[in-house]
Amino acid sequence: MSKLKIAIFLSGRGSNFEAILKNIETKSLDAKIECVVSNNPNAAGLNIASTYNIPTYTFSPKKFKNTEEYEEAILSKLSNHPIDLIVCAGYMKLIGPTLLNAFTNKIINIHPSLLPSFKGLNAQKQALEYGVKLSGCTVHFVDSSLDGGAIIRQVSVDVKEGDTEETLSKRILKQEHIVYSNVIQLFAKGHITIKNRNIIIN
Amino acid sequence: MSKLKIAIFLSGRGSNFEAILKNIETKSLDAKIECVVSNNPNAAGLNIASTYNIPTYTFSPKKFKNTEEYEEAILSKLSNHPIDLIVCAGYMKLIGPTLLNAFTNKIINIHPSLLPSFKGLNAQKQALEYGVKLSGCTVHFVDSSLDGGAIIRQVSVDVKEGDTEETLSKRILKQEHIVYSNVIQLFAKGHITIKNRNIIIN
Repeated sequence: MSKLKIAIFLSGRGSNFEAILKNIETKSLDAKIECVVSNNPNAAGLNIASTYNIPTYTFSPKKFKNTEEYEEAILSKLSNHPIDLIVCAGYMKLIGPTLLNAFTNKIINIHPSLLPSFKGLNAQKQALEYGVKLSGCTVHFVDSSLDGGAIIRQVSVDVKEGDTEETLSKRILKQEHIVYSNVIQLFAKGHITIKNRNIIIN
Repeated sequence: MSKLKIAIFLSGRGSNFEAILKNIETKSLDAKIECVVSNNPNAAGLNIASTYNIPTYTFSPKKFKNTEEYEEAILSKLSNHPIDLIVCAGYMKLIGPTLLNAFTNKIINIHPSLLPSFKGLNAQKQALEYGVKLSGCTVHFVDSSLDGGAIIRQVSVDVKEGDTEETLSKRILKQEHIVYSNVIQLFAKGHITIKNRNIIIN
């Protein structure tokens, strides 16, 4: 079976991207990262890509008339690669219809909460302010909603007494680094079936 | 230390009530159920109370002018007992200011979801329709909001492929029967401290 070809979308440090790279290196993940796309030219994740000789494409959304033209520019670069799956790894921008239509059911994201609780920015802070005793992370398909796509997998993480946004984020991130690669491997093996909002893992 | 005196509020079969009774019988819970209050004269949970010779008080809300008078009638019966804690066990009615003021931070509820996801009725059905992969149950203080009070403890439960509302409810209920008594025991031992929405377990 050929390897799953991935495009990583990121805006920041790319810690999930790095975890995926390491799982590919240790052969626990049958995938190849074809390229990295960023909306932020200063994203530290771009340096990681360079270290691994992975092509990077950076686009400043504000240089485009609208999201459609921005995403068409991305699509034109992606067309140089045989992409099976777009993996959002801290990509801080809503995906628009142009990309969604070109990659239907082929864009996934990881979010640091047990969705549908605490969508959007600063999910860990939201969780602490609400006072939940369990939080976690969710891998889901991307659709036009904010963090509202069909859920593939969720892992719970205890909130501990005295937790700060930093300590809770760190504990959740540790799980993100494991579960995201696990889900990508399920894709690589063709084990994921989509039935409306119900994701079946074979 | 004297036993924690409890009033159970229920509207239905009272399966959590029964679990609490069994944990008291086996001495894993240092509590005494003083009385059972129901808004439903046909609640099967009332029969369980009779079996155990526990006083029951039934009130039909529609026979009262408003929630205030309904709850004042409840209060007048509760005043016959030294109640430390009101435990809602399938009590399908919002608690109003009259009871909340009389029992501030002394009313708890258990809800079959990982709050704040899936508040209100049919939480398990809501969870299945959304397509979450983790659900569970939440023990929380009751305030004037619907299932929005400060969270004391949460337990996660896997959603499995092919789950129906019935199978998921059953799996969650099994955890409810354990965690609710655990939390009540923490009350009995004075181990719960309330700091706004942040519940500290000593």
